[in-house]
Amino acid sequence: MSQENFKEALKQKDLPIGVFDSGVGGLTVVREIMRQIPKERIIYFGDTARVPYGGKSKEIVTRYSEQIVRFLESQQVKAIVVACNTASAYALEKIEKKSKIPVIGVVKPGAKTAAEVTVNGKIGVIATEGTIRSEIYKRYIEELKTEAEVIGKACPLFVPLVEEGLLEDPVTDEIAQRYLSVLIDSGIDTLILGCTHYPLIRRTVGRVMGEQVRLVNPAYETALELKNLLQEKELLQDEKPMLGTNQYQFFVSDGADKFRYFANTIFKYGVLAVKQINIEEY
Amino acid sequence: MSQENFKEALKQKDLPIGVFDSGVGGLTVVREIMRQIPKERIIYFGDTARVPYGGKSKEIVTRYSEQIVRFLESQQVKAIVVACNTASAYALEKIEKKSKIPVIGVVKPGAKTAAEVTVNGKIGVIATEGTIRSEIYKRYIEELKTEAEVIGKACPLFVPLVEEGLLEDPVTDEIAQRYLSVLIDSGIDTLILGCTHYPLIRRTVGRVMGEQVRLVNPAYETALELKNLLQEKELLQDEKPMLGTNQYQFFVSDGADKFRYFANTIFKYGVLAVKQINIEEY
Repeated sequence: MSQENFKEALKQKDLPIGVFDSGVGGLTVVREIMRQIPKERIIYFGDTARVPYGGKSKEIVTRYSEQIVRFLESQQVKAIVVACNTASAYALEKIEKKSKIPVIGVVKPGAKTAAEVTVNGKIGVIATEGTIRSEIYKRYIEELKTEAEVIGKACPLFVPLVEEGLLEDPVTDEIAQRYLSVLIDSGIDTLILGCTHYPLIRRTVGRVMGEQVRLVNPAYETALELKNLLQEKELLQDEKPMLGTNQYQFFVSDGADKFRYFANTIFKYGVLAVKQINIEEY
Repeated sequence: MSQENFKEALKQKDLPIGVFDSGVGGLTVVREIMRQIPKERIIYFGDTARVPYGGKSKEIVTRYSEQIVRFLESQQVKAIVVACNTASAYALEKIEKKSKIPVIGVVKPGAKTAAEVTVNGKIGVIATEGTIRSEIYKRYIEELKTEAEVIGKACPLFVPLVEEGLLEDPVTDEIAQRYLSVLIDSGIDTLILGCTHYPLIRRTVGRVMGEQVRLVNPAYETALELKNLLQEKELLQDEKPMLGTNQYQFFVSDGADKFRYFANTIFKYGVLAVKQINIEEY
C-alpha cells in the first residue's frame, strides 16, 4: 500500500457506516452491528414517512431505496447496509451497480447461514409479501445448496403486531400459529426470520415452531458479514471514536419523537437525537 | 343567473368529483357516493405508495394531501372529498383555504350526526392514532353540543386486520374487545367509526359494543353532505353520463393490480381500470 493510499484508507476508516430500513425494524441490525463492531460510527435512516415497504411494489421500493442511498452518500458513509429485507430483495442489485462504496443486504447472509445449518435441506422463510413474492431467499439458497427445498410464507400482520407492542401475547400466538402451520407441516428444520421486525417476536415464533427448528436471524449474520467485508477492504475501525464524537446518528423522514421512543426500547444505549429530513428531496 | 354563468354551471356540473384516501379505505365513501348520487362521475386517488397515514405526523399527512389535491385539480374536478379521517383531521383546513373548489372531509359530517343522535351525550370515537391525537372529533362535537362528552380510542391494528381480510374472525373480536372495553365502561350510547376502513368490520364492532350503542358511519353522512353541497352550488349532475364515458376512474401511487383486487371486493360494480401515477411529482 502506498503512503497516499494508506492515508486515504485511514481517513475512510473513520467514516460512519450507513444503515437504512423502512422504519424501526432495521434497528435490530444496528444493535447487532453495535455488539459485533462497537468501535464503528453508524448513521441510520428510517423511512418512517413511507413505512411499511412490505406490501409495496418493486418499482416503488427501489425508487425509495435509491433516494435513501443518495442521502446516505451525501453523509459520506464508507459502506451501506440495507437493513430491510424487502429493500434487499427488490433493490439491492440496482444499488450495488450504482454505488462506489461497498453495499450489503440482509438476505444473502441469512440465506448462507440457513443453507449451512440445515440438516434435512428443508428451509422455511417468513417475511413480508414483497420479500416472499421476490423469491430471493429461495434463489440464494438454491445457488448454495441445489437440493434444498425452500418454503416461503408471508406474515403481513407480524409487523403491526410488533409495532403495537404485542411481543408476548395470545393474539400474536394465535396469528403465529396460523401463519406457521404450513411450515410446521412441511417438516422444515431451519427457519429464516426474513424481516427485521421478526427478531422481536423470536420467542413466540420459536415456541410455535418447537425446539427442533433452528431460527436464523439475518441481523446477526449481516453484522458478521459487514465486519468481514470491512476487514477485507481495510475499512474496519480500530479505535473508539474520540470523546465528543457523535458515534450514532439517527435520521427519519417522519415522527422523530415516536422513533426515539421505539429505539430506546431496543437499545440499552440511549438514543439521544433523531433528526427529521425530507427524503423526497434526494 | 346570467346566461354566461348558466353555461359555466352546466359545464361544471359535468366534471367529476375528486375523492382521495391514503389507500383503499376511502372506497367505502365512494360506495356511498355511488349509492346516493349515482349520476356523478368520480375520480379516486389512493396513496398506496405511502399508505398508511394513521400513524404519521400532521406535517407529513398535510404535505401528502396537498400533493394529491394538486393532482386532482389537474384532472379538473368540481369538488374534492377528503375520504380519509386522518387527512381530514390534519389537512382539511389548509386545503380549504388554498382550494377554489368546494372541499369536504369526513370528520364534520360524522361529528354532526353523532351530536344529533346521542341521547346521554356520551360519544365514543374510534380512529387512527393521528385522528385521535388531533382531537378533531371532540372539537367539532363540542362546538355543536357543548355538554357532550367525547371519548376517543386509537385502534392501530384494525386497519391491518381489515387489509388481511379478517373481517369476521376471533382475533379481530379479541382485539376489538381490548380496544373497545374502555368505551363500553364509559357508558357511551353513540360510536363514530372514525376511519374509512372501519365500516368493513362494523359487525364485529357492533357485536362487541352491544345493541344499545348506535354506530355512526361518516361515509354515509359525507355522501349526504356532498349531495347537499353540490345541490346548493348548482353543481349536482342530473343526467347519467353518456354511454362510453368513463364514469369512475381510479388512480393509485402503487400496486394497481392489488388495488383493483381489493376494490372489487367492495363494489358490485367491477373496477375495470386502475392507473398508477408518481404522486411525488405533484
